[in-house]
Amino acid sequence: VSRPAGGGDAPEPRTLKLVVAYDGTSLVGWQRQAAGDSVQSLLEEALARFEGGPVTVHGAGRTDAGVHALGQVASVRMTCAHDTSTLVRGLNATLPTCVRVLSVDVSRADFHARLSAARKTYRYQIANVQTASPFTRAFVWHVPGPLSRPAMEQAAAAVVGTHDFSAFQSVGTPTRSPVRTVFSSRLFDDAGLLIYEVTGDGFLRHMVRAIVGTLVEVGRGWRAVASTAELLRGAPRSQAGATAPPQGLSLVRVDYD
Amino acid sequence: VSRPAGGGDAPEPRTLKLVVAYDGTSLVGWQRQAAGDSVQSLLEEALARFEGGPVTVHGAGRTDAGVHALGQVASVRMTCAHDTSTLVRGLNATLPTCVRVLSVDVSRADFHARLSAARKTYRYQIANVQTASPFTRAFVWHVPGPLSRPAMEQAAAAVVGTHDFSAFQSVGTPTRSPVRTVFSSRLFDDAGLLIYEVTGDGFLRHMVRAIVGTLVEVGRGWRAVASTAELLRGAPRSQAGATAPPQGLSLVRVDYD
Repeated sequence: VSRPAGGGDAPEPRTLKLVVAYDGTSLVGWQRQAAGDSVQSLLEEALARFEGGPVTVHGAGRTDAGVHALGQVASVRMTCAHDTSTLVRGLNATLPTCVRVLSVDVSRADFHARLSAARKTYRYQIANVQTASPFTRAFVWHVPGPLSRPAMEQAAAAVVGTHDFSAFQSVGTPTRSPVRTVFSSRLFDDAGLLIYEVTGDGFLRHMVRAIVGTLVEVGRGWRAVASTAELLRGAPRSQAGATAPPQGLSLVRVDYD
Repeated sequence: VSRPAGGGDAPEPRTLKLVVAYDGTSLVGWQRQAAGDSVQSLLEEALARFEGGPVTVHGAGRTDAGVHALGQVASVRMTCAHDTSTLVRGLNATLPTCVRVLSVDVSRADFHARLSAARKTYRYQIANVQTASPFTRAFVWHVPGPLSRPAMEQAAAAVVGTHDFSAFQSVGTPTRSPVRTVFSSRLFDDAGLLIYEVTGDGFLRHMVRAIVGTLVEVGRGWRAVASTAELLRGAPRSQAGATAPPQGLSLVRVDYD
């Protein structure tokens, strides 16, 4: 452990902000579990080698098993005095290649990846083709058969605003307010995939995947477009669509004010 | 097994041409091995269910373990009378998702995927960045550090033509002519990756990976640009660069006249 020049006191802890990407295919999710590799435990173990002792990492979004991240944000308070570029290189040399630290920056002391987050953006990738590519299968939901894009676009637009998202929250989630504000909710095409991208001030457990499952049921004609708006008035989980599978989902970005 | 309408004779065998894509990450390569899933064995098992008996599949390129294909071509003679679109759907319902049949067409009786092939195109993907993306890691060779693009481009261009490629053939390959003709050999950028693409009338075992390993050594300044041309005059394997790892390589396309 390095100490400030000339000082004999314990080193000042710093708050570090990490931007992290991961392929969640073989991970148990963000949060530490009894068994399996979580992003949190992998990062804590890698950081502990620099700190010379245990550290606690907070993540902006608690992604589930199989969900990916292009720009997850984590915060940690550490006394180690390594410069940030050394940390980036050293962490990536230690971590498995499914997890990459894209950047490390020194933040305000009170920065907390989750509590300080203003907006999060998630993306969900659908392969709406007869034969799914073997190269993207770990990152898409394969949905063959016709989907009505206009119906799905209308339903996606209805999600924007402040609503009671109970219908899109996994059953058994601990009680807290189910009200969230969605700033943007849209569908577009990218490289042959149908993409749903949503930005909000926060997301309930399984919320994006339940929205996507509902949009696909709208696209298939199994449910009316107008049903989405009705679901956003606090309907129970059972009335919305099935939860889309995890591998199509990625946490794209976390914004701070 | 269906029979021609009105006939009592044994059904006529047809020669089918299959175009196949695969993620080779967990496969032992094209060719059947004592243990592990090969593309050949997976296709033969899937086709045997339609034929009601064993079939033999020939592939245009015998890709190694870990190598991918966007457009491998296979040929098979079968008596089953299913229409080709039923075969595409049925095969993809049976095969693991790492192997996808993109098309099935009825060919000339004497069509043979390997012997009839006129040109093959391979692509090799290099991530020349400090931090490799966790999403493409199964399909790239991560080469951090500076690479001289002009030097690599000159060396790549020298590969075009008819040469003795002994220096780029894996040691211990059964004796046959090491002379091959390369029609195109170039480097370009695509989606943040450095791509090497080569088209030739045929390729020796490990030839593309040995060329790429040599190009990277040229790019790093470990070997002179001019050395590539010298290697193409029948130099021994030991004088060329190391064999690049398999996961960066894909068989892109096979052309027939």
